Amino acid sequence: MEQRISLITLGVRDLPRARAFYEALGWRGQEVEETVFFQAGGLGLVLWGRDKLAADCGLADAKPTSGFDGMALAHNVRSPDEVDALLAAAERAGATITKPAAMSDLGFYSGAFTDPDGHAWEVAHNPGFPLAPDGSLTIPEFGTRP
Amino acid sequence: MEQRISLITLGVRDLPRARAFYEALGWRGQEVEETVFFQAGGLGLVLWGRDKLAADCGLADAKPTSGFDGMALAHNVRSPDEVDALLAAAERAGATITKPAAMSDLGFYSGAFTDPDGHAWEVAHNPGFPLAPDGSLTIPEFGTRP
Repeated sequence: MEQRISLITLGVRDLPRARAFYEALGWRGQEVEETVFFQAGGLGLVLWGRDKLAADCGLADAKPTSGFDGMALAHNVRSPDEVDALLAAAERAGATITKPAAMSDLGFYSGAFTDPDGHAWEVAHNPGFPLAPDGSLTIPEFGTRP
Repeated sequence: MEQRISLITLGVRDLPRARAFYEALGWRGQEVEETVFFQAGGLGLVLWGRDKLAADCGLADAKPTSGFDGMALAHNVRSPDEVDALLAAAERAGATITKPAAMSDLGFYSGAFTDPDGHAWEVAHNPGFPLAPDGSLTIPEFGTRP
């Protein structure tokens, strides 16, 4: 298995609402076969009906909880001010701010929101994780590699 | 918001077990502060304690279900044979095969598994979604924009 991810698909209850949320944040996607595809760096972020996605994975679509999906996406930015600006923009677009921005013990500034389907996003400025001009992120060498 | 993702963090119940699963599939990560980081193209895949991740997102960690997280990751490969080989390798590494590989109506060959923490992965050969030599995926133009 090559060390890479091709697509991240978010199960959604209302495709137009979900697409409108991401487009309000400036993303531009294409819709085909009741699926919305966004190019996000070297992979695609996909919005698809939650029931269809569960079935495609061969999984029962358990009753949705009001809590945590079990995974989270992060969007790192280049300054603390950008964290604040993005959280404010997400809230205006219909997100729920689940953690106001704060400085962590580890020296990065971050907050979190959920999108209209409850998917969690963290927004962070982490000087220890460099972003390239194209936005790609490189995990630093921590000196712990065996 | 730039159209990109920096990190995907999977909440896990047993960090050594989760790391061993991905390393059995050939991934190589670094562990620091009870967190495992894998470079995956231009972003990082992160394994972190599920309770800590939920708290960091400001979310209640609902009782885990036996079902579907609400989102799925996909790993696209270059041939149908690679789909079969990866599903077999995942099962040997401890995955649960949730959908055996099959040809879809849309002309791609795919199957799905869940990792030891129940996170869903689809494995697909989709000739319509080109993979670059470095594994990055480009969403094709469907002619439906905007």
